Amino acid sequence: MLEPGERIDQLYSQNIKIIQSPDVFSFSLDAVLLADFAVLHQHSQIVDLCAGNGAVGLFLTQKTAGSISAIELQPRLADMARRSVILNHLERQINVFERDLATTFEVIPKDSVDVVTCNPPYFSHLPTSKKNPNPYLAIARHELKTNLDSILTITSGLLKMNGKAYFVYRPDRFVELVTKAQQHRLIAKRIRLVHPLAQREANMVLVEFIKDGKFGGQRFLPPLVVYAKDGNYSPEVHKLLYGETVTGD
Amino acid sequence: MLEPGERIDQLYSQNIKIIQSPDVFSFSLDAVLLADFAVLHQHSQIVDLCAGNGAVGLFLTQKTAGSISAIELQPRLADMARRSVILNHLERQINVFERDLATTFEVIPKDSVDVVTCNPPYFSHLPTSKKNPNPYLAIARHELKTNLDSILTITSGLLKMNGKAYFVYRPDRFVELVTKAQQHRLIAKRIRLVHPLAQREANMVLVEFIKDGKFGGQRFLPPLVVYAKDGNYSPEVHKLLYGETVTGD
Repeated sequence: MLEPGERIDQLYSQNIKIIQSPDVFSFSLDAVLLADFAVLHQHSQIVDLCAGNGAVGLFLTQKTAGSISAIELQPRLADMARRSVILNHLERQINVFERDLATTFEVIPKDSVDVVTCNPPYFSHLPTSKKNPNPYLAIARHELKTNLDSILTITSGLLKMNGKAYFVYRPDRFVELVTKAQQHRLIAKRIRLVHPLAQREANMVLVEFIKDGKFGGQRFLPPLVVYAKDGNYSPEVHKLLYGETVTGD
Repeated sequence: MLEPGERIDQLYSQNIKIIQSPDVFSFSLDAVLLADFAVLHQHSQIVDLCAGNGAVGLFLTQKTAGSISAIELQPRLADMARRSVILNHLERQINVFERDLATTFEVIPKDSVDVVTCNPPYFSHLPTSKKNPNPYLAIARHELKTNLDSILTITSGLLKMNGKAYFVYRPDRFVELVTKAQQHRLIAKRIRLVHPLAQREANMVLVEFIKDGKFGGQRFLPPLVVYAKDGNYSPEVHKLLYGETVTGD
């Protein structure tokens, strides 16, 4: 089941095994936080764009019985995702589509989806920008094969009216994200900044968009702080990674 | 010097006296945080729009020797501001202009200002919205006499290229603020959310804009938390209100 260099990781808090490879793609905290941030219903129809090795979709199965379509461009990553789905016996809930997200409507009808999740490439594709020499990671992190406008076009097209999209993104492109989203009928509603430490600037932002939502009404949730002062994970992040802590009191 | 119902308040952390009236206008934490957030240089040319009783401009004198123009529409409030200026012997640094901000360019040239500060009315003027029955407070809080677009037009017009604007606003209109600001050549750069408690949603946001700044590059500063768990002010806010605490260690 495993290719050379791969291993099986498990998030202690979740009963999900994920095939990873440091050389190709490993999920990171972004995926855990995005899956936690998304609000799902029992029978939500869900699409995960830029799915990578499928971590977000796999985590979401713990929150819904609805069907999840994972769209991933890179054959090597889509293959890892597909094998993780089999490993977890989730073939009936998760479909992995190996394709350019621009062609999503060939397999999923427009206006048919309740929830889109996306952990997109964060970095603009500028001729001068330093890219990761690893081609798998370069495509996952830089807008080499897609860009924010394309992703938002597909996201908005997939969603039913009042459907929700959940994005994790870099704070430095936050205004670009929300203004472009608005041009695609996606209105930012719930926003959560992620700070590595309480006294440090945010290095991630989680955003919930509503398709055709009313203008205004943003809510900034309590900040999510990753590390406590002592260098350990904060209680909230510890719980996401390791599950409930059993304590003596 | 005082009209009936007025009193003189002093922020313990600052050597500034402010004439207030609960019936007319009293500064609140918004003004303290806005003045703290603004970055000034020794000789910055500053305009404070929607100046109210002048609190923001008065606080800013502790950070700069530059000249400050306070623009306030309401005669009663402008008069309080003017008397506070005299009370603090700041007539050479602060000019209070009693006028509609739409007429600002009649007294201050375009493209001449380094910094604009503004604590604007937060609430849209909708026919259905509940307004404060106190007419002074209704004008200060609701967009009865001006609105966000007008304020941004004046802000942008006043600023030199690369000049900075500092706004305090409500999080629920954050996307409207930054998208409209962008239409007026003001790019959001530094953003700070203010949370009443660490575990509560933000109820204020501080935003620094740069005129003709480059798109992108937002920084979300560490969250500002007003109250600690024990119900007392957090150390940061305590210091802003009461100054440095002298402790035994």
